[in-house]
Amino acid sequence: MTATDAERWRELGQQLRVDSVRSSAAANSGHPTSSMSAADLMAVLADKYLRYDFDAPEDPRNDHLIFSKGHASPLVYSLFKAAGAITDEELLTFRKLGSRLEGHPTPIIPWVDVATGSLGQGLPIGVGVALAGKRLDRLDYRVWVLCGDSEMAEGSMWEAFEHAAFYGLDNLTAIIDVNRLGQTGETMHGWDLDSYAKRAQAFGWHTIEIDGHDVTSIDAAYTEASAADRPTLIVARTEKGHGVSFLANHEGWHGKAVPADQEGAAIEELGGIRSLVITPPGPEDLKPLILGELHAEPAPTYTDPVPTRKAFGEALAWLAGHRPDLVVLDAEVGNSTHTEDFQAVAPERFVQMFIAEQAMVGAQTGLQALGKTAFAGTFGAFLSRAADFVRMGAISRANLRLFGSHAGVSIGEDGPSQMAVEDLAMFRTLHGSTVLYPADGHATIKLVTTMCDLPGISYMRTTREATPVIYDPDEEFPVGGSKTIRTSGDDAVTLIGAGITVHTCLEAADTLATEHIVARVIDAYSIKPIDAPTIRRALEETGIVVVAEDHRVEGGLGDAVLGAIAATGPLSGSVHKLAVTDMPGSGTAEQMRAWAGIDGASIASAARGAVAAR
Amino acid sequence: MTATDAERWRELGQQLRVDSVRSSAAANSGHPTSSMSAADLMAVLADKYLRYDFDAPEDPRNDHLIFSKGHASPLVYSLFKAAGAITDEELLTFRKLGSRLEGHPTPIIPWVDVATGSLGQGLPIGVGVALAGKRLDRLDYRVWVLCGDSEMAEGSMWEAFEHAAFYGLDNLTAIIDVNRLGQTGETMHGWDLDSYAKRAQAFGWHTIEIDGHDVTSIDAAYTEASAADRPTLIVARTEKGHGVSFLANHEGWHGKAVPADQEGAAIEELGGIRSLVITPPGPEDLKPLILGELHAEPAPTYTDPVPTRKAFGEALAWLAGHRPDLVVLDAEVGNSTHTEDFQAVAPERFVQMFIAEQAMVGAQTGLQALGKTAFAGTFGAFLSRAADFVRMGAISRANLRLFGSHAGVSIGEDGPSQMAVEDLAMFRTLHGSTVLYPADGHATIKLVTTMCDLPGISYMRTTREATPVIYDPDEEFPVGGSKTIRTSGDDAVTLIGAGITVHTCLEAADTLATEHIVARVIDAYSIKPIDAPTIRRALEETGIVVVAEDHRVEGGLGDAVLGAIAATGPLSGSVHKLAVTDMPGSGTAEQMRAWAGIDGASIASAARGAVAAR
Repeated sequence: MTATDAERWRELGQQLRVDSVRSSAAANSGHPTSSMSAADLMAVLADKYLRYDFDAPEDPRNDHLIFSKGHASPLVYSLFKAAGAITDEELLTFRKLGSRLEGHPTPIIPWVDVATGSLGQGLPIGVGVALAGKRLDRLDYRVWVLCGDSEMAEGSMWEAFEHAAFYGLDNLTAIIDVNRLGQTGETMHGWDLDSYAKRAQAFGWHTIEIDGHDVTSIDAAYTEASAADRPTLIVARTEKGHGVSFLANHEGWHGKAVPADQEGAAIEELGGIRSLVITPPGPEDLKPLILGELHAEPAPTYTDPVPTRKAFGEALAWLAGHRPDLVVLDAEVGNSTHTEDFQAVAPERFVQMFIAEQAMVGAQTGLQALGKTAFAGTFGAFLSRAADFVRMGAISRANLRLFGSHAGVSIGEDGPSQMAVEDLAMFRTLHGSTVLYPADGHATIKLVTTMCDLPGISYMRTTREATPVIYDPDEEFPVGGSKTIRTSGDDAVTLIGAGITVHTCLEAADTLATEHIVARVIDAYSIKPIDAPTIRRALEETGIVVVAEDHRVEGGLGDAVLGAIAATGPLSGSVHKLAVTDMPGSGTAEQMRAWAGIDGASIASAARGAVAAR
Repeated sequence: MTATDAERWRELGQQLRVDSVRSSAAANSGHPTSSMSAADLMAVLADKYLRYDFDAPEDPRNDHLIFSKGHASPLVYSLFKAAGAITDEELLTFRKLGSRLEGHPTPIIPWVDVATGSLGQGLPIGVGVALAGKRLDRLDYRVWVLCGDSEMAEGSMWEAFEHAAFYGLDNLTAIIDVNRLGQTGETMHGWDLDSYAKRAQAFGWHTIEIDGHDVTSIDAAYTEASAADRPTLIVARTEKGHGVSFLANHEGWHGKAVPADQEGAAIEELGGIRSLVITPPGPEDLKPLILGELHAEPAPTYTDPVPTRKAFGEALAWLAGHRPDLVVLDAEVGNSTHTEDFQAVAPERFVQMFIAEQAMVGAQTGLQALGKTAFAGTFGAFLSRAADFVRMGAISRANLRLFGSHAGVSIGEDGPSQMAVEDLAMFRTLHGSTVLYPADGHATIKLVTTMCDLPGISYMRTTREATPVIYDPDEEFPVGGSKTIRTSGDDAVTLIGAGITVHTCLEAADTLATEHIVARVIDAYSIKPIDAPTIRRALEETGIVVVAEDHRVEGGLGDAVLGAIAATGPLSGSVHKLAVTDMPGSGTAEQMRAWAGIDGASIASAARGAVAAR
């Protein structure tokens, strides 16, 4: 470091502050003071340490910078300006309709890997990015995560600390911008830097405490972090609103733009508008390693009943030999979800995240940002633990391939805490999501294969118990399709099921047939997008639709069917939703389905009643 | 402690193990080995330390025992047998249909406070229970939480560690049953007791490391914990399946009953069936403190537009003077959600949980178990962080009063990460839930008041921006009702909105009126239960329903309306759902509503088109 370096960093820090003030003032909203506290930290990083080619953001050798404190978006965008990536004019479009410079950063901007703005997610995502560099691609890029002090209260941060240490991610540096002030007052630990450092040390990290406005200390800390044999936490004491006397360390300025009548004074105190342009150091010359031996075995086939969760695991194991980009994350239930089958053949691409679902989806989000085809899952019920991570994944335009086993009351004895009966609603509601629920082993194999190339959030729900094989191995299952399994020229009623209820619908159809009621049976394996034309036609042709699902009556297959009907024309006929409407307990799978009114007898009874009332 | 004590504890430990083996063998499912590891820990606790009257589980002076590792249910139930609370016959109904001894414990059993079974939740709930004793009721009961070692990977546990230390909860003792083996193999830290202890110390806890099968050490640890000036973590080294040679510390026995042909050998090795009955020490004689000054001010009223979030905060502040049982939890956004208004008048009943939504809902679950009327919330988007806690709250039959501010794209500039557009689906899907979304200040006041006495999960969604006052202060808003705000004898179309879209529906109705299209406008403030008869009648009378909601098109108001129609008779007419169907960005509230197609102009256009097509 030279005196010139230090002077340039100080100037750059001031520029980032000025531009944070200006952009948020132009928007009349945003978080300038939370940006100003971290400006010096980012100035030194971008100028000297961040090996990043702004002209080639997809270069796999680039370092990664993640703003876990996504509300410091004025600082990110000001940094993009300083790097010559955006113009000053664009900077001032911040938060305006149509601008890519949204209130919080998202990957519609080429230099942003993932969306942040829900606190406590950037570091878990950073773990995934670092894991890819360290364990998968074996590239020596470094991952830098800027964290807020308030978000250290989120448990997901400590999941990330745990995993980063466990996997020896010495390529990961987290920086806490300890500006002391949260949204409503002082954080739990204020400026007690030790409190953060001692926690991180206990979790196995190297820690460095610094004055976050002293560029010399910042420089030394980055050098030390880069050389550490463990993940490093830099705990930086800063001031919120640093550099402007009426903002610095003052309460009441969180998430507020500097008003027009004070903007000039703020900029003047910061030394005026600057237009320094820096070029971060470029990435080093290395190539990603291709992991995994490829082979071209045929897909598994089945004749005997098989649980779809088992077929799912076998599909992943089979695909491991075809797709070197495939990575599977587990939350320590691989012997239940059957990802252990993948682990057995591709252990180097299997990542054990232990019982930490948020960290699992966070790491998955990081891995997919690096181009990995990453599957992650656990019991469907426990994916709700990561609901906010999945929600943010949609905003990240991430390709998250999720799976949930142990669907519905059909798991039986384990009881309601283990039963996924709200998962379809959670996944259906997300923007651009795909929701799949296969009824047999062959449908599972085909749909898992399809999921590998689906964009956005995709979710597969699997069943605990074995179900009969009802499809040929070469049957195709397009997303948005359905299978009309049983039909005649003269169907009196339509039964729609998915997954396990395809089988109870078939059972009901058999019963009804003995009573000379001919039922059409539709397997709605693609719950979203759903096959609206087929459902519409069934309603028009039979006049009665009975939908049975092993899920709560709200938000799942029944609502999808009604939505499809409403969207395709005037309403007619009748639709009967059979689903879980009370709180389940323990019992056998069959007892629980009978209790919920979704077994063959209940479906037959509902259909019989509707036909009689016609 | 006498030699007799130690001998009794050892015998009791063996009995608990035998009964864990027997009950799960009878069910042919369950987790005996995870129960056996903690049997000695629970034997000493129940016999000497747990001040609990099994004949009076509602006694507010009782200690609380929470099994955070809920899968050790055979151990809990065996303990109930040992305490004489259930018979041996009932013990053997474990996991059978109709038995209250479900796969994982729930409060349908009188001696269970809360449901567990989703790992990492018992300790955060225990924080709430301890907080009530320490800060609210000022009772000296003690809270004992039995934790598994696998669940220490859940970040929610570390949120709990943080809060327990911050609030000085010296009445809380957590015990980690370090049996080394998770579901699929060794945990992250195996038998490294120090790894847990040093983390907990860093978070401000007192820690004790012991051999979890040595009753003398266990006894000493409980005595030490009871005297500590901080929350205490007892880290106990144990063996999974302890006491039976073919189970003890063997992999492959997680969640498996001992097969019938090995059950006899297991019981024999444990010394046979016993029927010791113990009586835990009773609670001490103290009375709960009543906090808060009561006063009888009238409810707030409004004439000018007011944000419903602001009316919400003012409602809580007003109710603070009427209800000493009212407690409000915040996730450090009280100046946005306006719970700061409650904090200002009742600081002793306001609990700051910082940015830790899981811990917030966990503590709330604990507080309501103690009879508190507890409200908790944050931005609606961030409640998804606590989705699994809310899901488990439903299984706990907990009365969780939740609120989410900043609903929909109407928040404007902050962008999608801060917009609640999936929250209605999340809350609608839960068993027994109530979902409320007021359109003005007066509706808010009435509905918050109603929420105070609602059972189960209730959710109120509030709006960021000010909305006009459209109701009189004395208007009533029953749950399950709606308001037909505008109607004539000859309505051509029905517009249904809730919250912000009530106002855009009114705007649309004004526009349509100028075109001589008379629109009925319904405010569906009660989204669940929804006013099905009124909606049915509107569809029958007008033939066209347009539903507009500031939420994703799946799982929200539109689906609720369709469900109500399907449930009340044959389908007829047409229903048009206007909702968020693409990924939002930043813009003003009005721009975002226009973008989503839920502003007045879009609603008018949809209605106009539907009327023309009739």
